[in-house]
This record gives sequence, structure tokens and C-alpha cells, in this order.
Amino acid sequence: MAISGIITLVTDFGLRDPYVGMMKGVILSINRGAQLVDVSHQVGAGSILQAASFVREAFVFFPRGTVHLAVVDPGVGGARRPIALEAGGHYFVGPDNGIFWPVIHDFDGGKIVHLTESTYFLKEPSFTFHGREIFAPVAAHLSMGVELQKLGPLITDPCKLRLPVAYEKDDALFGQIIRVDNFGNLITNIHGDRLKRYVEASQPVVEVGRLTIRGLSRVYSDLEEGQPLVLINSSNWLEIAVNMGRAAEYIGLAQEEIVGTVVKVTKAVKAI
Amino acid sequence: MAISGIITLVTDFGLRDPYVGMMKGVILSINRGAQLVDVSHQVGAGSILQAASFVREAFVFFPRGTVHLAVVDPGVGGARRPIALEAGGHYFVGPDNGIFWPVIHDFDGGKIVHLTESTYFLKEPSFTFHGREIFAPVAAHLSMGVELQKLGPLITDPCKLRLPVAYEKDDALFGQIIRVDNFGNLITNIHGDRLKRYVEASQPVVEVGRLTIRGLSRVYSDLEEGQPLVLINSSNWLEIAVNMGRAAEYIGLAQEEIVGTVVKVTKAVKAI
Amino acid sequence: MAISGIITLVTDFGLRDPYVGMMKGVILSINRGAQLVDVSHQVGAGSILQAASFVREAFVFFPRGTVHLAVVDPGVGGARRPIALEAGGHYFVGPDNGIFWPVIHDFDGGKIVHLTESTYFLKEPSFTFHGREIFAPVAAHLSMGVELQKLGPLITDPCKLRLPVAYEKDDALFGQIIRVDNFGNLITNIHGDRLKRYVEASQPVVEVGRLTIRGLSRVYSDLEEGQPLVLINSSNWLEIAVNMGRAAEYIGLAQEEIVGTVVKVTKAVKAI
Repeated sequence: MAISGIITLVTDFGLRDPYVGMMKGVILSINRGAQLVDVSHQVGAGSILQAASFVREAFVFFPRGTVHLAVVDPGVGGARRPIALEAGGHYFVGPDNGIFWPVIHDFDGGKIVHLTESTYFLKEPSFTFHGREIFAPVAAHLSMGVELQKLGPLITDPCKLRLPVAYEKDDALFGQIIRVDNFGNLITNIHGDRLKRYVEASQPVVEVGRLTIRGLSRVYSDLEEGQPLVLINSSNWLEIAVNMGRAAEYIGLAQEEIVGTVVKVTKAVKAI
Repeated sequence: MAISGIITLVTDFGLRDPYVGMMKGVILSINRGAQLVDVSHQVGAGSILQAASFVREAFVFFPRGTVHLAVVDPGVGGARRPIALEAGGHYFVGPDNGIFWPVIHDFDGGKIVHLTESTYFLKEPSFTFHGREIFAPVAAHLSMGVELQKLGPLITDPCKLRLPVAYEKDDALFGQIIRVDNFGNLITNIHGDRLKRYVEASQPVVEVGRLTIRGLSRVYSDLEEGQPLVLINSSNWLEIAVNMGRAAEYIGLAQEEIVGTVVKVTKAVKAI
Repeated sequence: MAISGIITLVTDFGLRDPYVGMMKGVILSINRGAQLVDVSHQVGAGSILQAASFVREAFVFFPRGTVHLAVVDPGVGGARRPIALEAGGHYFVGPDNGIFWPVIHDFDGGKIVHLTESTYFLKEPSFTFHGREIFAPVAAHLSMGVELQKLGPLITDPCKLRLPVAYEKDDALFGQIIRVDNFGNLITNIHGDRLKRYVEASQPVVEVGRLTIRGLSRVYSDLEEGQPLVLINSSNWLEIAVNMGRAAEYIGLAQEEIVGTVVKVTKAVKAI
């Protein structure tokens, strides 16, 4: 596979500690010409689900042959395997804890290897920072064209991730809020495609927390400032927002309760 | 115009969500060799004024031919035009909402185009993320030498921004606090040049909130630790600070009241 | 000395203000091909000790010939000298306030110069932002191969930093917490090597705040979720952690009291 020389990073390390910088130093010691791109270092500590969603959403915007390094690794040093894989024309490197499951699921599994060839590791690995000693150097080697098969044996049983999925029941579509973004927008797991039959003919009614919103907006500024609205966002998910405001506050739930809250979509019933 | 291959970014996207990473992926898919520099992704949500000030203050430190991408875009998908412009030997790309007004105003307007040539966009643009689908790819193309005129028709009526300006009345100079920086320093809109007649002969008296500060310091450490002081900062604006402390707390105002607070400068009256 | 073309940055500027971007613009105006790596911009305001520890811990992971720019500079514009130095095969640029003391101490002092040659500065330096006008351009010139000796006269009396050190008394080892990381882990100044005699034969007992922890873990997941543990971390320091939790909250101290809290290590006494 052709390589792009680009390496993206998703971690839960935050930006204050020098951990991300150390990983980049390791990468550049191997591949001085690597182009490093931070996707996020502010994944919630240990949130494999959030990291998996960031990787899945972002990687498709990079050129083919890019290496995506994802280190949210609460089980570091324990039984979980370090892996690398190829899927959709891209490489992925990180712990086998489900972080790449959405990629594997959506791109026919790809080719996955258990990272055992310590030639490609930093010498003297610690027990608690495989991001620096295993994943960063392996990503650097992949970005230089080292073949996946050289890194270890193929495996076919990667760790899966239980993703909350939307479902239909009694003419209603039920999903949930899976993320609150920087603008306080509420991202759901209801895909635009599933919404089609609720949009046809009449407008959908969306119920979430204490809110009931009728109709679908096209853009944030479709409604007056401060008004709540529902739209299909740029990643094709149903999103609840407030024009020039924060839906996360408007919804009337405690901040820690928001993720996981049920979102119900029904067809508008015409008044008789 | 010569190009530098550098693209700077100012957004209000924050650093947790994968939005900035997506934009960078789009840019690098077009120009693999682009040098990407984050100026700020922590502009207050929807604060065009703050973004405009960051762009205006920072761009002059980059080499000529740099492309400055600024995406604070609450009206995305609505009536506001996407634009690109050339001013002061640099390129700027973003929404026509006033974000580039200080640059246009201070550098004789430059040459401004309405971005209509969709050849230079990402295919299938969404309604809610023009940063990714219009501005990022256009910035990438500009950074590779595509001519501004090819991107769309010239316009001469860019959106202006109402900037709070300092004024003089009854032998006093009135300005306001426009920003609190990471150190709690209070940046005002009083330019060093306007302060000259208050500094001559005697020392100025600066009143803000419950504070009255006499005299101008040269550096933060001119006074004892914990003492408030006034100086002309490195961008030539009057700044109120506390040596080794935070003026933002010292001033005795609620955090949300600070920006906009009036700053009054008078000449010291000599005791008879 | 060979150069790598890489420049790392440690500052207390935060990521909201455009100050870091300005420094990068200055660097790239001099060396367009520089590879810039952020190690941290979220050092506590004015915390020379924290910055010194970040620089010391991170620089060894970069290739030889890298330039490390560190700007935590509360005395900017005052009496403290601007310096650059060579130690351990790397370059360092910043204020002479102790920020490089751990590097100088651990790598035999290196060669230190007082930055006086203003040819290598940005023209018209301000009094309050030497990061932009002195340190960034000097770092850029070093990264292009300019020799250290050209930047100013050698000095041999760099500012030292008083580092809290662990000590032994009455068969116990006393250290302190020097940092809380992004995961709430408590990093101490007790080096793995000093712990050896407490680990032999029996397991050590670690007392900190209201906690007493018996035995040393190898990885975070050695214990049940929510259990506190002690391990030697990836930088070889004794660290107190909670599996899938935050030791910083578990320890039962106010957040502002944690750094500096005494950590006591003794050998387990066998029950008779």
C-alpha cells in the first residue's frame, strides 16, 4: 500500500503533561519527515468508545496510506494485545481493546496483526506507557513503508466494542445522545439514512429530555437565536442544537446525565 | 504573489472534538507539504470579534504568502458569503462575517473574492461545516499557488465589524478591556501611540474597576510581587497586570463583567 | 553538532491566546523547514519548576541536534539573562531562571552562552515578550546550524533551581508529590533506584495523605477497578494511582494541597 507519511494521533493524555510530546519525539527519531496531526488528546480518560468514534469519523478525511495512532489504553501492560491493522486504505496502531472496532466493522475487517516483533519497538519498554514504547515507533515504521506483516502474526479475533445502536419500535425511532461537542451540540447515534421515513410527507417530532422539537432545520441559523432545533449534521448524524446557544444547557439535564439520554423520533400526526 | 506553503488556523472548535483534525486531513489531502500552524482553536464560541483580533495580531509574524484560515462561523450555511482575500502580502480564507475586517481596514482593503468555484471545494459539501468543505480545501489550493481570481468573482462590499474604539473627552482618554489573557492580564483597546501625551511630563493615572494605578511600568517585574501595574504590551496596547498574579481576579469584578469594562486615563495633577 | 531541524516548545502561554502562534510564525519566517513540536503550553503560570521537569523528562526522546525552546519567564525584561546552551547532544533556548538547571546538572553543564548578539533577534524587541523576539528567532537560527558561540559570550554561572529531593531517615524514605497528571496520578520525586532496598525481601508500605498502600504493582490493571496502587512509572518515578480512577481525588486532600504532600516509604514489618 502507498504511504502518505502522515500520522494522526488520538489519545486521552491531555495537553498539559509532556506525554504526547514524548511520543512525537520517538516518532521523529525514526521518521524525521513524518507529518504529525493531532486529532484529539482530550478524549475522556479511559473512554474507548469516544476514541473509537473520533478515529472512525476523522480518518476518512486523510489521504490513503495515513497511519492513525490511537492510545486510550486503561489496560496497558496487562493481557490486551498491541495491534496494527490495515483497513479502507489506511493503517491503524493501538491497543486491542475495541478502539478500532468501528473501522474494522465498517471496512470489512481489514488485515490485523498482533505486534510482537520488538525490533520495531523502542528499546527497554516500560509497563505503563506502550504509547511511547510500542505504538509510536510502530506507527513511525509503518509511515516509512515497513510492511504490516513484518510486525507480527495475523489475528482474526480483534476485541469488539458494544456500540449503542438506534432501533425502531411502534412507529417510533429510539436513539441516544452519544456526545456533547464544544458548542454544546448534542450528537446522537441516529443516522440520517434511518430518518428518511420520518421526514417524508410530514416533519419529524424529536423528544429529548424536557424538549419537544417539531421539524428539521437545515442550518443553525434557520431559527431565531436561542431557539432549539434538530438537524442532520456534517457527519450525517441527527444533532440537537440551539442557534447561537448551547443545547447541553437548554435541555434541562445535569451535564453528567446527558450522554446516554434517549432521543425519540416520531412522525407528526396531522390534526383532524 | 509568492507562497510560503504555511497555513495558519483560527477557530472556535476547541481541541476535544475531531473537527480541526478533519480540516487538516482535507488540507493535507490536497497539499501534502503544507506546514500547518494552530494560532487558536479556543476562540469563544461564535466570537467573531475575538477571532478577528487574533488573526489581525498574529498574521504579521508569518512569512509573506502565508494563508490564514479563520472559521468562526455562526451563520454557516445561511446568507453570509464564503470569501478569500489578499492583503498585506498574505492570504485569508473564511466566512464574510467581519472576521477579516481589521485586516481589510488596516491594509487598504486588498483584493476580495466570493468563493463560488466549487471545483476547489470538497465534493458533497454539508450545510453546517463549511470549514471542512469550502475553507480548508480553498486554503490548501491557495497554499499551492492557485490564483485568487480563479476562486470566484471580486467583491467590494465585505462585511464590516464594529470595533470598540478609545476616545478622548475632557482631558481624559477612555477605552475598554477587550480581552483577558492566559495570565489574567487585561488587554485594552488603548494603543500606545494615543497614550503619549498622558505620559509626557507627568505619569498617567489609570482607573479601572476599583483600581487606580499611577505611573507606567516597563516590565512586569518593575513592581513588587502582587502589585498591580500598567504597561504598554508587546503588541503596543495598554495592559493592566499584576506582577506574578492575575489582574483579572485583583480588579474586583465578576469574570463575565471584565471584558467591556471602561478604562480611564488622565494626566497626574501635580500637588500644589 | 549535527542538527535535526526539530524545535520543541514548552511555555505557560496556554492555547487560547495567539502568543504561541506568533512565536511559530517568527521561527518559520527564519527556517521554513523547521519541524515544530508542542511539548506543553499549559505549564502553570510562572512555574519554572514544572517547566524544568517537562523539559528534562521529554527532551531525551527527541533526536540529537534538536532545539528545545522553553519560555516560562516571569522576570522577562528584567535582570535575568537570555541564554542558550548545548547539553547531552541537544540545544536549549530560554531565560536564565533555572528552567534548564536539571538538564545542566544531569549532563555535566554543557556549554552555555548569554544571548547578546542582537543580529539573531527579531528587530525591535519589546520588553515583555522575549519568547517572540529573542528566544524564537535564536532557536530558529540554531535549528539551521548557526553555531552556539556566535550568539554571545560563554557563561559558567547559570541560575540554579532548588529541587525538592527525597531523603532517608530512621529506615524510612521520604519524598513528596511533585505533579498530578491528566489521569489524576500522583507523580513523586522518589526515583525507582532509591526504592530498591524497600522492595527487596518484603514489599514496601507507602503512606500519603490518608492512604496506606502495601506492595508495589506492575501496571494499573493489577488491582481491581477503583483500588489505589503504587508503581514505578514509565519515567522511573514512584507514582500513586487508582485503577480506572483518579488518585488525586481518592487521596482525600484539597486539590491545591496535593503537590508538596509528603510520601513516606517503609519496609513491611513481618507480623511475629
